[in-house]
Amino acid sequence: MLSVTQPREKLGQMANAIRSLAMDAVEQAKSGHPGMPMGTADIAAVLFTKFLKFDAANPTWPDRDRFVLSAGHGSMLIYALLYLTGAPGMTIDEIKRFRQIGSKTPGHPENFITTGIETTTGPLGQGIATAVGMALAEKMLAAEFGKKAVDHHTYVIASDGDLMEGVSQEAIAMAGHWKLNKLIVLFDDNDISIDGPLSLADSVDQVKRFQAAGWRAERINGHDTDAIAAAIERAKKSGKPSLIACKTVIGYGAPKKAGTSKAHGEPLGAEELKAAKEKLGIAPEPFSVPAEVLKAWREAGGRGVAARKEWESRIAALSPKKRAELERRLRGERPAKLAKALAAHKKALIATPQNIATRKSSELAIEAIAPAMPEFLAGSADLTGSNNTKAKSVAAFSAKNPKGRYIHYGIREHGMAAAMNGIALHGGFAPNGATFLVFTDYARPAMRLAALMGTSVVYVMTHDSIGLGEDGPTHQPVEHLAALRAIPNMRVFRPADAVEVAECWELALNRADGPSVLALTRQNLPQLRTEVKANRSAEGAYELAAAEGGKAQVTIFATGSEVEIAVGARKLLTDKGVRARVVSVPSLDLFLGLPADARAKVVGDAPVKVAVEAAVRWGWDALIGSDGVFVGMAGFGASAPYKDLYKHFGITAEAVAAAALARVG
Amino acid sequence: MLSVTQPREKLGQMANAIRSLAMDAVEQAKSGHPGMPMGTADIAAVLFTKFLKFDAANPTWPDRDRFVLSAGHGSMLIYALLYLTGAPGMTIDEIKRFRQIGSKTPGHPENFITTGIETTTGPLGQGIATAVGMALAEKMLAAEFGKKAVDHHTYVIASDGDLMEGVSQEAIAMAGHWKLNKLIVLFDDNDISIDGPLSLADSVDQVKRFQAAGWRAERINGHDTDAIAAAIERAKKSGKPSLIACKTVIGYGAPKKAGTSKAHGEPLGAEELKAAKEKLGIAPEPFSVPAEVLKAWREAGGRGVAARKEWESRIAALSPKKRAELERRLRGERPAKLAKALAAHKKALIATPQNIATRKSSELAIEAIAPAMPEFLAGSADLTGSNNTKAKSVAAFSAKNPKGRYIHYGIREHGMAAAMNGIALHGGFAPNGATFLVFTDYARPAMRLAALMGTSVVYVMTHDSIGLGEDGPTHQPVEHLAALRAIPNMRVFRPADAVEVAECWELALNRADGPSVLALTRQNLPQLRTEVKANRSAEGAYELAAAEGGKAQVTIFATGSEVEIAVGARKLLTDKGVRARVVSVPSLDLFLGLPADARAKVVGDAPVKVAVEAAVRWGWDALIGSDGVFVGMAGFGASAPYKDLYKHFGITAEAVAAAALARVG
Repeated sequence: MLSVTQPREKLGQMANAIRSLAMDAVEQAKSGHPGMPMGTADIAAVLFTKFLKFDAANPTWPDRDRFVLSAGHGSMLIYALLYLTGAPGMTIDEIKRFRQIGSKTPGHPENFITTGIETTTGPLGQGIATAVGMALAEKMLAAEFGKKAVDHHTYVIASDGDLMEGVSQEAIAMAGHWKLNKLIVLFDDNDISIDGPLSLADSVDQVKRFQAAGWRAERINGHDTDAIAAAIERAKKSGKPSLIACKTVIGYGAPKKAGTSKAHGEPLGAEELKAAKEKLGIAPEPFSVPAEVLKAWREAGGRGVAARKEWESRIAALSPKKRAELERRLRGERPAKLAKALAAHKKALIATPQNIATRKSSELAIEAIAPAMPEFLAGSADLTGSNNTKAKSVAAFSAKNPKGRYIHYGIREHGMAAAMNGIALHGGFAPNGATFLVFTDYARPAMRLAALMGTSVVYVMTHDSIGLGEDGPTHQPVEHLAALRAIPNMRVFRPADAVEVAECWELALNRADGPSVLALTRQNLPQLRTEVKANRSAEGAYELAAAEGGKAQVTIFATGSEVEIAVGARKLLTDKGVRARVVSVPSLDLFLGLPADARAKVVGDAPVKVAVEAAVRWGWDALIGSDGVFVGMAGFGASAPYKDLYKHFGITAEAVAAAALARVG
Repeated sequence: MLSVTQPREKLGQMANAIRSLAMDAVEQAKSGHPGMPMGTADIAAVLFTKFLKFDAANPTWPDRDRFVLSAGHGSMLIYALLYLTGAPGMTIDEIKRFRQIGSKTPGHPENFITTGIETTTGPLGQGIATAVGMALAEKMLAAEFGKKAVDHHTYVIASDGDLMEGVSQEAIAMAGHWKLNKLIVLFDDNDISIDGPLSLADSVDQVKRFQAAGWRAERINGHDTDAIAAAIERAKKSGKPSLIACKTVIGYGAPKKAGTSKAHGEPLGAEELKAAKEKLGIAPEPFSVPAEVLKAWREAGGRGVAARKEWESRIAALSPKKRAELERRLRGERPAKLAKALAAHKKALIATPQNIATRKSSELAIEAIAPAMPEFLAGSADLTGSNNTKAKSVAAFSAKNPKGRYIHYGIREHGMAAAMNGIALHGGFAPNGATFLVFTDYARPAMRLAALMGTSVVYVMTHDSIGLGEDGPTHQPVEHLAALRAIPNMRVFRPADAVEVAECWELALNRADGPSVLALTRQNLPQLRTEVKANRSAEGAYELAAAEGGKAQVTIFATGSEVEIAVGARKLLTDKGVRARVVSVPSLDLFLGLPADARAKVVGDAPVKVAVEAAVRWGWDALIGSDGVFVGMAGFGASAPYKDLYKHFGITAEAVAAAALARVG
């Protein structure tokens, strides 16, 4: 235990400093959530002064304990802690600019804005589920590099709201199954939600629920600092992840609003604030912290210096090769071998073309990637054999085999996506996870956070259209490409053949600033590409087949499985004397983000523009114009063999050629 | 108990008829899931011959027990049951056309295709969560109309996958809290998932987990028909919802594949099928059911005739007024009072214009609607005071107050949306539920099912843009309007003022064939409309302000809070001598669905088209063309007071006017 011994009353004063700053900042912003930091200040004071291994001045030290404020609305708790412990950049002026434009203290904690924030929280349930990924990454990295190099805890403060969200169940089931014993969740068990007493909407016994998921769980008084410390001690000794349900009073100290939903999401008001400070024995001046209390906090902020230095010595003592590899992995830099492996793979595809489903092409790519990239961490939400995501060379991760490099996430798409965020944020691994494209709907809140935070993760989404056939409309995405492309910073790839699959994998793995979706087919497709000189998918679209015999009259744009159809339509048009070209669009969003002149070169000036995609039209007008021809889906799909469906919905080479011909006149 | 006594061996033969049809249909389709129906055939045989209150010939009889196959991939179970019990339209030929185009036997059960299917399932977790809504509706309707009129159970067969999905936690927490004791879940506890043994990914103790959520839960042998019957008896007597974990063997009877994931999602193959039939004592002919077994099943299908007739007599004995009201409610017909109430409300808005947030305008509309429409069932995922969804005249529903007409769903957006589907499918209520627009991401799988099934539900989604201000980008939708508009059959309304809010509520409540989103602001907006002669939102877009002094040079299209900005820009342009008109677009998707000539009338022919929406551009090119001017968001938002954000992101009347001017030249 890295402890600076604090007499209990000093700990109380230190907790009050959090309360004081939280009340003042929310009051000044006229907006925010004072009740949560006031209620959890004692928990945070114990955690940060006695347990959390951190060095405030070096917030990105790799082996620090992770602290996740899942109840992100209580952001002033963490901003106060960062200020009090002396984190770089978190000045009292930033606290005063809480929730103002350009400040380091936005409404909810944003890791891309504020140094010292481990992950962006606010959408409930995300923090705890992301923390599961962090704890998983720690366990795997420790198994690979040893306890001397990797050995830290992940702490979470979670609220009732976090635990009511369904994703929390997926997360705790994974953590329990994987025996992530270094994950410790402190539950702010305050019996209040926004609508009023929790009893309006909930009667779950959370301790029993967590125990059912394989956790150690207990209840304590969340304002008894000795009890908090003792419970964390017990948790650290457990072989299971731990829930500590801390009974707290929301808005602790506010004479009228404490213990009520009125303390949750609005300023206390001048009068109640004044009375709360009086009751807590806090001086009335806003944003003031007594010098000796600030000094104690700053000492706590330096508690981890020795631990950090010891870790640095241990790392320095590793073999140079091992050390270099760990450091590369933690930097998120790709191994030199990766580019070579992919180049060889692409060359092999030209030598032996593969007329297979793109999910199978993806498997071939993975077989090339995995041995070249030890941090490559694939997984599936219980569709391994359908998603084709498991390389032969890797074993499954389990509590007993922490060196396994394939994750069976279970039927938990949302938990998978959130855990992937945590794995990526922790560092050391490049996570990718798989399910059917239609089930991105289940994972969307975590995928959005990935785009917002810019985590480098890959979603391998197979069965990407009516091409999945018999499973029917509940399993056939039609709006999902559009819905994913609409997310800022989400890159959506829909490759047309085995070569484009390799190119898109390459682009996705080398994307350092955000997530990528690979939309892949269930059905077989011909290999269309005959050369691999450059990564032609890199600009999102390129001319796959030029017009024959002169200036093009028609350009057919298509993605994925519909590029084959476009190529067929071009042939039919050519046979009728119409000059048509085909532009393959492996990433519409990437392409639309290019400067206009770069786009114009690819779009060309053929008067008739046709787009083909077995999905809804939303978004395509940006490329083909509102007067362009779109061949795709107008509504939901149906259950039948896929070839019947393509005919039924009129997505065929003949239909495309006929639509183009009608325009050519 | 409505029972036709069956000797156990006959029950076994009846179960084998299910197994036989399931094996044959999947084999013929070369696609499907034989293992689940083979594993649960005994459970289904007990349920349908001894407990389920139904009259196969009258599958929509309102007081029937509901049966939900949450594990929808096992669709052949329910198709076999429909055929065997003699449901209208389910012939042996339909069974033979399993998973073929136009059949009544699609890959997953689709209630809009097949009579006798209560809800569309397949996306895991949805069935159990929808069933919670059905059971809730039953409890509320029984409280209102009495046990003589409404008194039935809701049975669910759920799989491991259903219980691993997070939405199941939200659903069971609600059911436990509400003490929905007439909800009985039979859990197909077969220890197998697609990737292999369940132990690869899960070790949750489901019985303890359900108990922690306030359920009665027990374990039985799922192939012991006496044990199944006894457990259902106990469940029916419980004051809590019940989980019966039935230990089963997936693919029961298949000599090699039973008990393995190989029995899950593919045909058994000719050899294994033959051997399975031999082992089970089934004749080898495909699609054959022994005459005496079919006869027993058909008798079971008629078990409920007497119960139905008794119910009809009881209904006939109700007071004419009560009966008429119940029948109207069950037909889903709106009360005559509703149109009058809304007309009066709109008139009052003209008399006293309201310059308030559209969430507040919505509250005013709700205050007008709720007293006129007893089936109006509002609720919120713990944001009641922010969503403004609770009419003063209604009380909260609870286990103790089942006549309450407001649902505190808790922080469970997904469970709320799924429950709303169940409520709508059950009949008797018009559900609407609320959260922040950004959190539609959490509810999306259930919202998609609503669109697919065409359930008439309303999502009241407030805080619909950067206008929510300080909570920041995690809470600010930017892509959600586009992502929702892309869902086929989802109607997205974004009204601009109090009058449009009333109009959009009217359109949403009168939509019989699908769901509607109301996207509403946190911030105040001026009332722009000065007349209410017709529902001008009904076509999705209309000219709010014409150009002054001649033919328009500029058309500014805008939605919601940005219509005020468009009106401001029009004034600035007019002041500079540029003739501009404003088109308000309360529903872009509705408008784009109109015939071209109807659209052209509203779009007009001003050479410069500008769209203003505080969201991403996706979809707008369809209206303004890819060369149109779009003023909106290019990425995520930020945390600050909302007026600062509008300036920061350049969504102002000045910016719109300047962009238009640059085009006018």
